[in-house]
Amino acid sequence: MNSFIYDVGTKIYFGKNATDNISTELKKYGKKVLLCYGGGSIKKMGLYDKVISEIKKAGCEVFELSGIEPNPRVDSVREGAKICKEQNIDVLLAVGGGSTLDCTKWIAAAAKVDHDAWDFFSDWADVNEALPVLTVLTLSATGSEMNCGGVISNPETKDKIGRLAKPLLPKASFLDPTLTYSVSAYQTACGCADIISHILEVYFAPNKDMYMLDRFMEGLLKTVIKFAPIAIEKPDDYEARANLMWASSWAINTFVTGGKTHEWSCHPLEHELSAIYDITHGLGLAILTPRFLEYCLSENNVDKYVDFGVNVFDIDKNLPKMEIAKLSIEKLSDFLFNTLGLDDTLTKIGIDETNFEIMAQKACEYDCINGFVKLSPKDVEKIFEMCLE
Amino acid sequence: MNSFIYDVGTKIYFGKNATDNISTELKKYGKKVLLCYGGGSIKKMGLYDKVISEIKKAGCEVFELSGIEPNPRVDSVREGAKICKEQNIDVLLAVGGGSTLDCTKWIAAAAKVDHDAWDFFSDWADVNEALPVLTVLTLSATGSEMNCGGVISNPETKDKIGRLAKPLLPKASFLDPTLTYSVSAYQTACGCADIISHILEVYFAPNKDMYMLDRFMEGLLKTVIKFAPIAIEKPDDYEARANLMWASSWAINTFVTGGKTHEWSCHPLEHELSAIYDITHGLGLAILTPRFLEYCLSENNVDKYVDFGVNVFDIDKNLPKMEIAKLSIEKLSDFLFNTLGLDDTLTKIGIDETNFEIMAQKACEYDCINGFVKLSPKDVEKIFEMCLE
Repeated sequence: MNSFIYDVGTKIYFGKNATDNISTELKKYGKKVLLCYGGGSIKKMGLYDKVISEIKKAGCEVFELSGIEPNPRVDSVREGAKICKEQNIDVLLAVGGGSTLDCTKWIAAAAKVDHDAWDFFSDWADVNEALPVLTVLTLSATGSEMNCGGVISNPETKDKIGRLAKPLLPKASFLDPTLTYSVSAYQTACGCADIISHILEVYFAPNKDMYMLDRFMEGLLKTVIKFAPIAIEKPDDYEARANLMWASSWAINTFVTGGKTHEWSCHPLEHELSAIYDITHGLGLAILTPRFLEYCLSENNVDKYVDFGVNVFDIDKNLPKMEIAKLSIEKLSDFLFNTLGLDDTLTKIGIDETNFEIMAQKACEYDCINGFVKLSPKDVEKIFEMCLE
Repeated sequence: MNSFIYDVGTKIYFGKNATDNISTELKKYGKKVLLCYGGGSIKKMGLYDKVISEIKKAGCEVFELSGIEPNPRVDSVREGAKICKEQNIDVLLAVGGGSTLDCTKWIAAAAKVDHDAWDFFSDWADVNEALPVLTVLTLSATGSEMNCGGVISNPETKDKIGRLAKPLLPKASFLDPTLTYSVSAYQTACGCADIISHILEVYFAPNKDMYMLDRFMEGLLKTVIKFAPIAIEKPDDYEARANLMWASSWAINTFVTGGKTHEWSCHPLEHELSAIYDITHGLGLAILTPRFLEYCLSENNVDKYVDFGVNVFDIDKNLPKMEIAKLSIEKLSDFLFNTLGLDDTLTKIGIDETNFEIMAQKACEYDCINGFVKLSPKDVEKIFEMCLE
């Protein structure tokens, strides 16, 4: 068990009408607000008007950056940073899903430097400070509302890169589960696949785990498995939306990591997929994860799969270990593809083997992925191939 | 499910040599440090020297308040506050178990006001600010290292009162599980009983629960049940001490509460016991909790006991509900009294019914305890009586 620092100071307002508290928090950080959002959905649902009224209530002046893309692009970061500099913005308010939040966080950092925003990813330029960021979440998936990470795409270089930086941690986030009532069945499913992947990336680890955190992760997994189908069937089920929302935050706010330092495996693979094909992140993860688990299974690590199968899927613990392990992967696939209804192969979403070799090499940035099981580019290629059928 | 605010900004350094980071944190808060601790145990274990060297490394001047009691008294708070005012202390460093931490937190508040420290409890005087507090934990039990509460006793009035106040939240806490290696089997057992009680006070609730948090609480309970006997048997088992330490923080840092607003039940009863008889808090809770659960069990709330029995103690879920409920209480008693080896009756620790009536009335400060099940003073008296044999 490694040592660790836990330092998550984001203040969370959780529940119906959580957004009533926006003005209280905004006031703490200044007078000029950059409101960042994506397409028009927040206008349709009335959230835009609510947010504007809170900004007014706080006595703040509002500037806007709209049109932030799914898989947000570095151009949006540049554009936002330009507004921040020109208008002397004090605080950023992101309203949307993980893409909007990620983009806003990097705008907050880019606003504080003279160099190009992409340097944070191509040159790993220092992130010493950032403007304060507040977030209003409308999609339970990435956990961006309670962590200091963000993923940015660069269509020119076909890169999609995630990076953590302490100054990006939101100061406060407003989590109202009712704001996710209008999320479609498909996006709900993709979001849930994303949450599950965040947990499994940590759960399946090469090093010794902290028992307490493993039990917590199993609880999070059971939560998603229980409530995802309810939210899909009945989009305005508060209990389901609330559990999924809070689970999404805790799946990836560093708590579950508890000192584990291994690299994640499925995320770098998926980033290559969505960098080239611009697919939904959660869908890519859903297709990859069961194949990854199948590829990595061995006598050496079977115990972890047994915990997973017995504690999450209630598989009979008296069965032979390898059988439990295989059943656990089947159960996961059944959940992702039958219960959530996601496409189960890359072929079905129009991706073939054309770019597998180059994608595998890019995914293995430092020669290999040093994760649950060490993966060479050849291993990664094989996992991609397993996803074809 | 109620709405809630989650706002726990304590920075945690967790692991071997976590105390190496004290100087880094101290520097942020000023030059004059009041070091607060209890008896001499931190000197025996070498921790005192380590802390002093960190304070020197930070370039700070050190003042000391030692001799803070178990069940810390308001006189110690007064004494600490006096030093803070006379010496213009900038930051407090608490080194010890929950009692030392609680006392230090209230010193931090008392240092900022002109009135007597007991007014915070007798008159519920406002707590608008406090000096910054850092903590080094040497006993896993109260969770004081990561919450804003503290319990203070007043021997003159025979009161023992706990109170939460946001400014008391430690800025940073240093959790090194090896610092609990020297905790005796008995104190380890009492600490574990305390952790379990914190969880059960929240778990058994009258209102609708958040599924995700219930699963987390079950994970915490399983963690304590697994590692308490290991820590007692082998005091320097790092994994056991680490799991117990981190579980103690999360059992009571408000995360598991998730919007529940009911009053706690066993804690007010125990506070009356230790206010009069000065017994160890965790021991009192251990004796009370199974009787409380037995007294409250009914057809209306049996489902909660079933969750507890099946998910924590692996009781066969196909048994009749009432049988599972009763078995779960038996399993809990078996753990507390046989596995942990704690005394199982008040009689065994020399307490008889003499003060039950008055204690019951004091415990029901506002006519009744409005908790899992509403308890009148008569109910409380009966629970005390059940603890006699």
